[in-house]
Amino acid sequence: MVDIATRVYNHKWKIDPIVRSMLDTDFYKLLMAQMIFRRQRDTRVTFSIINRSQHIRLADLIDAGELREQLDHVRSLSLTRGESTWLRGNMFYGRRQMFEPEFIAWLETFRLPPYELEEKDGQYELTFEGPWLETTFWEIPALAIITELRSRAVLKHMGRFELQVLYARAMARLWEKVKELKTLPDLSIADFGTRRRHSFLWQDWCVQALQEGLGKAFTGTSNCLIAMRRELEAVGTNAHELPMVYGALAPDDAELLKAPYHVLADWQEDYDGNLLVILPDTYGTTGFLKNAPSWLSRWTGIRVDSKDPIEGGEEAIAWWKAQGTDPRDRLIVFSDGLDVDAIKSIHAHFSGRVRFAFGWGTLLTNDFRGFAPDGLLDPFSIVCKVVSANGAPTVKLSDNPAKALGPPEEIERYKRVFDVSEQSVREVVV
Amino acid sequence: MVDIATRVYNHKWKIDPIVRSMLDTDFYKLLMAQMIFRRQRDTRVTFSIINRSQHIRLADLIDAGELREQLDHVRSLSLTRGESTWLRGNMFYGRRQMFEPEFIAWLETFRLPPYELEEKDGQYELTFEGPWLETTFWEIPALAIITELRSRAVLKHMGRFELQVLYARAMARLWEKVKELKTLPDLSIADFGTRRRHSFLWQDWCVQALQEGLGKAFTGTSNCLIAMRRELEAVGTNAHELPMVYGALAPDDAELLKAPYHVLADWQEDYDGNLLVILPDTYGTTGFLKNAPSWLSRWTGIRVDSKDPIEGGEEAIAWWKAQGTDPRDRLIVFSDGLDVDAIKSIHAHFSGRVRFAFGWGTLLTNDFRGFAPDGLLDPFSIVCKVVSANGAPTVKLSDNPAKALGPPEEIERYKRVFDVSEQSVREVVV
Repeated sequence: MVDIATRVYNHKWKIDPIVRSMLDTDFYKLLMAQMIFRRQRDTRVTFSIINRSQHIRLADLIDAGELREQLDHVRSLSLTRGESTWLRGNMFYGRRQMFEPEFIAWLETFRLPPYELEEKDGQYELTFEGPWLETTFWEIPALAIITELRSRAVLKHMGRFELQVLYARAMARLWEKVKELKTLPDLSIADFGTRRRHSFLWQDWCVQALQEGLGKAFTGTSNCLIAMRRELEAVGTNAHELPMVYGALAPDDAELLKAPYHVLADWQEDYDGNLLVILPDTYGTTGFLKNAPSWLSRWTGIRVDSKDPIEGGEEAIAWWKAQGTDPRDRLIVFSDGLDVDAIKSIHAHFSGRVRFAFGWGTLLTNDFRGFAPDGLLDPFSIVCKVVSANGAPTVKLSDNPAKALGPPEEIERYKRVFDVSEQSVREVVV
Repeated sequence: MVDIATRVYNHKWKIDPIVRSMLDTDFYKLLMAQMIFRRQRDTRVTFSIINRSQHIRLADLIDAGELREQLDHVRSLSLTRGESTWLRGNMFYGRRQMFEPEFIAWLETFRLPPYELEEKDGQYELTFEGPWLETTFWEIPALAIITELRSRAVLKHMGRFELQVLYARAMARLWEKVKELKTLPDLSIADFGTRRRHSFLWQDWCVQALQEGLGKAFTGTSNCLIAMRRELEAVGTNAHELPMVYGALAPDDAELLKAPYHVLADWQEDYDGNLLVILPDTYGTTGFLKNAPSWLSRWTGIRVDSKDPIEGGEEAIAWWKAQGTDPRDRLIVFSDGLDVDAIKSIHAHFSGRVRFAFGWGTLLTNDFRGFAPDGLLDPFSIVCKVVSANGAPTVKLSDNPAKALGPPEEIERYKRVFDVSEQSVREVVV
């Protein structure tokens, strides 16, 4: 029977919104926002979309009007009563009341701030200027909207059966991956794929597939909305924006050198347990570990995000050993451009020597490689990064020069301050 | 929104019926039934299910109670008003009123006759005894029910996502086939896959995929219900049961030798045009063509169903030439265990030399090969054949000894009468 009401209701939508909830974002955004809420309420920053895959001319593919409609729709959203209840009542990382009532009260009133959109050379310049506490919330929806609008631009030329077969192939591909991952003992893997997902519905399907296919080896999703709806763990800790802003705010080189540790000192005042995961690569992992205060070796783990994963993992193990810590009591989170082959070789390399977990991102939620002519549905490398704080430019070096961000002269200054020597370039797929 | 009514309605079903309409059968059944209605109303025959794939122990896989429920359900069906209207009003093979009002009036009152079901050595012995006009209608639903119950027996152990991925893989596989077939110029292909389909819903999907993917190269479906619902041509002509029954009814060897031509003489009184397709292999193609009366060379085409298709096609072409007929004005219908590779090589071999069309059956609607462990979802070779007529055993020789049917001494007699020499065995996949 036709459900007339549903059909009529669906036709009332003016657009098909990509982001429909304030919680359709990554969990670490909430953790970081609470830290900003407590300590950096007056800091103003600018976030900016950076399309590293310049050959994909987004402004040619995506209609500016549609992009505005989607961005405007997100600005109309606010935390619902049920979402707020979930944040207040749910256990995160084994802890109740992760978020203080004042922060949630603020979040309930929060709307996303305005955006600036311009076209230049076939690309969109999309920036978000305002209080850090507010603009930080643009990162995930902005990326998800652009990525999904690009998917839609390709999909709209496909027939009904072509579409069905497209998703059939994507499902079959993911299930093959799940079957391979199932063979790995003591696997621990989570979905980190919100920002560059093919689409919301596809991410939701992928999460459910991992849930059914991997059982306990699937430890959760970074997507709060999906975690809430599917009754999964919401996972994630912190991101480069914290040291990038702290670094930009540092008055001199001496303070700049301390900034990454300052971030973590603040962090451990707010969080504990498995949330104590160091992201060491903002200004180069090697220098970070060399200068790291000894209290950091008591943290639960390290995230390896831009270095070759074997190399990065070995570096972490060596550092823990030098600190007199048994790496088998510590955790490495791998999260850079992972797919099954990488997961398998990392797993084979580190098994028994250290605890480790995987944050599987874009190649989980957007592996449509080869499914459209000319790679038109292949995932691509787009990020939304903080580019200035209180008027000062921010810098990210990372362990991979291909991921470096910031004005050239500032990059040189940061390299000098953090004593970064030659780095090897790794191709950035996603 | 949940459609409560639909959900409650669905829960009222005691079973999930596999065959839900009298028209969920092959079109040739109706054509043959009208011929029987006109000429053979007193003939009584027995049809019997024959599982050529004895390694598949159907009685172990399929619950006898469920099988009875499904068979009983078909017996509760009768032609609906809309179905009757379609038969009366639709154009078949370019002709209106293909079915005479008396026949349709009879069909409206018709219910499938009783069946006999027994278990023996892990197999079901399923037979249908009664007037030919009635029992002939059991062939397709009986096969479709057994084949789908076997699918269900395997599917019921699969999880929700395993199921979704299973169909995803099947869809992707079919679409790959469609893409390959699209490259063939002047292709003419129809769905002949009702009887051994994976399931009704899957056949319906396959038909729609061919419709969208192949456009005009897809010429129709043998399934009347799907043809009606999807507004497609219903296709098919006649089957081995006609010469088999006529042969069994022949009082002596001389009449037996004439029986296959007797069938076709009757047929051309009832039908014309593209329905005049000779099925020559019941007692061996070579002998059939050697003794064929010259009026048969005026028929539109020949169906190649059990001989190697290249060999069978060449034989038909040679025969037409010997009759002074240009093969380019004639049609060959290939219909034996086809898949894309065979279609492509037949197409390459005969292009420009003769008109030809493909009846794509089980490997269209049931190609789940390799999708379950131990080939548990692979199609298998099961048929429902007439085994006796008015008490006399029927015989089928065909061009492939692996497909021969009948008591051994009768097979020998038929081989003598029809002068059948050594035949080469071809593996029967489906």
